[in-house]
Amino acid sequence: MKLRVDWRAGVSLVGTVLKYLAVTMVVPIVTGLVYGDAFVPYILPFFVTAAIAVGLGAAMERLDPDPDIGAREGLLMVSLTWLVVSIVGVVPYVLEGLTYQNGQLVYLIDSTLHHPENALFESMSGFTTTGATVMGTIDPTYHSRGLMLWRQMTQWLGGMGIVVLAVAILPELSVGGAQLMDAEAPGPGIEKLTPRIAETARALWVIYAGITLVEILLLYGLNEAGMAPNMTPYNAISHGFTTMSTGGFSPEARSIEAFGAAVQWLIVPFMVAAGTSFPLFWHVSRGNVRKLVDDPEFRLYTGVMGALSALVAGFLFVDVGLTDAATEATRAAYEGVNENFLPHTFPIAGDVEAALRQATFQAVSLTTSTGYATMDFNTWSGPAKYALVFAMFIGGSAGSTGGGIKVVRWLVILKSLRRELFSTVHPSAVKPVRLGGRSLDERAIRGIYGFTLLYIVIFFVGALVLAADAAFFGAGNLAVDEAITASAATLGNIGPGLGAIGPMGSYIDFTPQSKLFMVGLMWVGRLEIFPVLVLLTRAYWQS
Amino acid sequence: MKLRVDWRAGVSLVGTVLKYLAVTMVVPIVTGLVYGDAFVPYILPFFVTAAIAVGLGAAMERLDPDPDIGAREGLLMVSLTWLVVSIVGVVPYVLEGLTYQNGQLVYLIDSTLHHPENALFESMSGFTTTGATVMGTIDPTYHSRGLMLWRQMTQWLGGMGIVVLAVAILPELSVGGAQLMDAEAPGPGIEKLTPRIAETARALWVIYAGITLVEILLLYGLNEAGMAPNMTPYNAISHGFTTMSTGGFSPEARSIEAFGAAVQWLIVPFMVAAGTSFPLFWHVSRGNVRKLVDDPEFRLYTGVMGALSALVAGFLFVDVGLTDAATEATRAAYEGVNENFLPHTFPIAGDVEAALRQATFQAVSLTTSTGYATMDFNTWSGPAKYALVFAMFIGGSAGSTGGGIKVVRWLVILKSLRRELFSTVHPSAVKPVRLGGRSLDERAIRGIYGFTLLYIVIFFVGALVLAADAAFFGAGNLAVDEAITASAATLGNIGPGLGAIGPMGSYIDFTPQSKLFMVGLMWVGRLEIFPVLVLLTRAYWQS
Ligand SMILES: [K+]
Ligand SMILES: [K+]
Repeated sequence: MKLRVDWRAGVSLVGTVLKYLAVTMVVPIVTGLVYGDAFVPYILPFFVTAAIAVGLGAAMERLDPDPDIGAREGLLMVSLTWLVVSIVGVVPYVLEGLTYQNGQLVYLIDSTLHHPENALFESMSGFTTTGATVMGTIDPTYHSRGLMLWRQMTQWLGGMGIVVLAVAILPELSVGGAQLMDAEAPGPGIEKLTPRIAETARALWVIYAGITLVEILLLYGLNEAGMAPNMTPYNAISHGFTTMSTGGFSPEARSIEAFGAAVQWLIVPFMVAAGTSFPLFWHVSRGNVRKLVDDPEFRLYTGVMGALSALVAGFLFVDVGLTDAATEATRAAYEGVNENFLPHTFPIAGDVEAALRQATFQAVSLTTSTGYATMDFNTWSGPAKYALVFAMFIGGSAGSTGGGIKVVRWLVILKSLRRELFSTVHPSAVKPVRLGGRSLDERAIRGIYGFTLLYIVIFFVGALVLAADAAFFGAGNLAVDEAITASAATLGNIGPGLGAIGPMGSYIDFTPQSKLFMVGLMWVGRLEIFPVLVLLTRAYWQS
Repeated sequence: MKLRVDWRAGVSLVGTVLKYLAVTMVVPIVTGLVYGDAFVPYILPFFVTAAIAVGLGAAMERLDPDPDIGAREGLLMVSLTWLVVSIVGVVPYVLEGLTYQNGQLVYLIDSTLHHPENALFESMSGFTTTGATVMGTIDPTYHSRGLMLWRQMTQWLGGMGIVVLAVAILPELSVGGAQLMDAEAPGPGIEKLTPRIAETARALWVIYAGITLVEILLLYGLNEAGMAPNMTPYNAISHGFTTMSTGGFSPEARSIEAFGAAVQWLIVPFMVAAGTSFPLFWHVSRGNVRKLVDDPEFRLYTGVMGALSALVAGFLFVDVGLTDAATEATRAAYEGVNENFLPHTFPIAGDVEAALRQATFQAVSLTTSTGYATMDFNTWSGPAKYALVFAMFIGGSAGSTGGGIKVVRWLVILKSLRRELFSTVHPSAVKPVRLGGRSLDERAIRGIYGFTLLYIVIFFVGALVLAADAAFFGAGNLAVDEAITASAATLGNIGPGLGAIGPMGSYIDFTPQSKLFMVGLMWVGRLEIFPVLVLLTRAYWQS
């Protein structure tokens, strides 16, 4: 055991990640070339970013050419990776459209992301797969195609990182009950999937990339089938990137509302898959489907989403919340139009399919922390909106790209609470909590309790901080539901909330310091809180 | 150890409590006589109630004339007591104004409480010191003086029960970390205050009654001093009953807004005292003031309320939320009127005293779970309202009459989370959590974690149930903040929430089944959840 943290080793590994990041610039560069974007203001920024990533990465690697890391260095590496990558990811946003004319540097387009704090918000929101946005004009014909695809890809890359983090790294670090993933997965432990982290990572990435590819092909297939006229290859790839990563960014300003019912229904199972524990897919790929359908977390995860979808569908069927006048006006405006081509804000109350689709899509999107929307749910009735707030506190499955508290934690909590009731009657009895046929370690249970309460405390205090900053130093007062959902949606890496930060809204009106605060919330939330907070303790840095 | 629960013994003791309840009917009866209320429709109901209480109580006692209770019987007795007393407490509300005229029974007044589900809601709200109301017309000249004072007194009696429950009974039952009260009180354990439960109870009741009396005298003193023209002896007693019990009922429809600034300021320290752990007052009464000021829970409790008050005062000072037109109209209407005589909805923004008073009163009222209000905080700005929602999840101190999660639990949780961070760095180190100089038992910590998470789960699901019932079977849709606060305010025994159930509003519009559901929330919340829920487990009833 080393006496102090070997920060050089941790930083060195972050440098390696940065060098890999440089390679990914090829995607926006090729995209820019394909679409014929002007080189200097639109393609050059990605070369600059790649150069910075390589240069900085190499410098970091030189701190320790042969890093040997333990648990402490792992915590540092994990936390720093998301921070440093997000900071480097600021460069394309800030440089987009910048050129040299008449002896001075000028921007050819007007972008909110030219402001560094906005760019950092967007970049962290991307790499943490949050999907909260401060981009003023969401439109790939206003911004360059390359930049808009890069924005989508930050989420896909972030999702890749999360898959490895959740399945291979956090369990090793015994963080917040994450050891469950290791000890409690039914059958062969995840650790035993393949012998080394690198191989585990590769196996999971194949699954991740494979499902992404299937989704892209199916989305484009709907276009070919005439059921999704605007689901171009560009849009298919863009949304493939942000579904499997539970990211939720879209190059369409009105998210998945821009597409027809067929696309909306198709995306639902992929969001469900994105929030499912990835090791389960590994078992399925080996023909062991029972591992999936018998998994207690998967059953609770799908059961809760099913129940919530049905409940919200009921709310919408009875009273969607929109005024009758608005509903009638929309219905009249689209009289006779083929419904595959409609924006889907049309009447829902009384329409079974529309109510089910809108309810299921939104309930799944917020439970899995994807954050896509098929309509502005701000217009919904109070109960339907509350059901979505409820969904925001469930989260995806452990070992998925989903954020939030996570279903397995709630499962362990519910089982432990039953044990607590038993203990009240039989104070001296020792009764273990069982999950998937195995007894849980008391320390893991304590970690799960602690994580969940810490999450809730940070959420409550975070909302208060945002509300206070907006009231005293910002443009005005946050409504109660805005304060609550701004905190929940960033900490849980969900993206949209209610009010001004609704699915068709933006985080642009927050003050710079509130944006930086939410950058912090996205960061700690994505890393399961403890790896970041622990860096702030004296115990971490001392021997 | 007995093999099965001796339910007869538990029920027998509830019978004894019922017989004591009968004695308390003397207060509304004397009040009715003093104010010259008509006997049959207004005073007779209390004789009927007393007769039912004595008869039922005697019958219950006969089940086991010499009850010998252990932990299980204690759980049953505690849960049943609040339920049975609340059911018997329905009688005065239902019978009020009932008389025999022209050959049939008729009501002389129109009262929402003539409906049994409303009466049960009001009765449970009283005895659990919640203060949520479904009384249509809150006015002691519309209802009888006796009934209105009885309503206040249910809270004072409920508070008496809670004092004993929290300090003497729950610690014995090791419920939800309540053993802390025993093992962790600094200095001589509470158990050692006096040797037996009965004596402990008596000592605490003297303190409870003593502080109540002081408040009544001071309130009336303000009247004598000319600073509170409408603080009659009746009002002074009424509010004394519901301050020390953190009850929050008021015979004034607009709560403490009906009184001047002097009364409002005076009530604040009494609410603070009501939410303070009562054993600390016992130490103070013995001259040991340091026990109070050094107590870690008391320091966090007062610190949090101080910080929240300052924050809310800032919000109100900057922008109270009321429109300028409304503010100006109110200011103009009261031009030149002595401010001691005003209803206090007048302008606050820019007025340091008014902002501080309104903020402090409301923050203290909701943190301690009293539920009084000095204005309709529904009219406040979003951030100020969110701060009050935040306060609702803090709760009073353990061993006080306050409801909610309770400050000592948050204290233990925060300390445990710090330990959890330490454990992440030093996985093999064993580090106890210390409070007030002593190490906490791991089992108590687990109980506290479990209680708090169970509380939060019930709150979240409760809001969903209320929203669904209102949408499908009720008058309409609950707003998000209405759903949230209806659940939080009843589970936490706070009383008012936001929207329709604001401090000047009412729970009357909920469906009967929602009212019964909230009766359940008030009941489980008041009894720290576990004693009630455990009765629903098989383990409790089996050997
Ligand atoms: K997201
Ligand atoms: K109350």
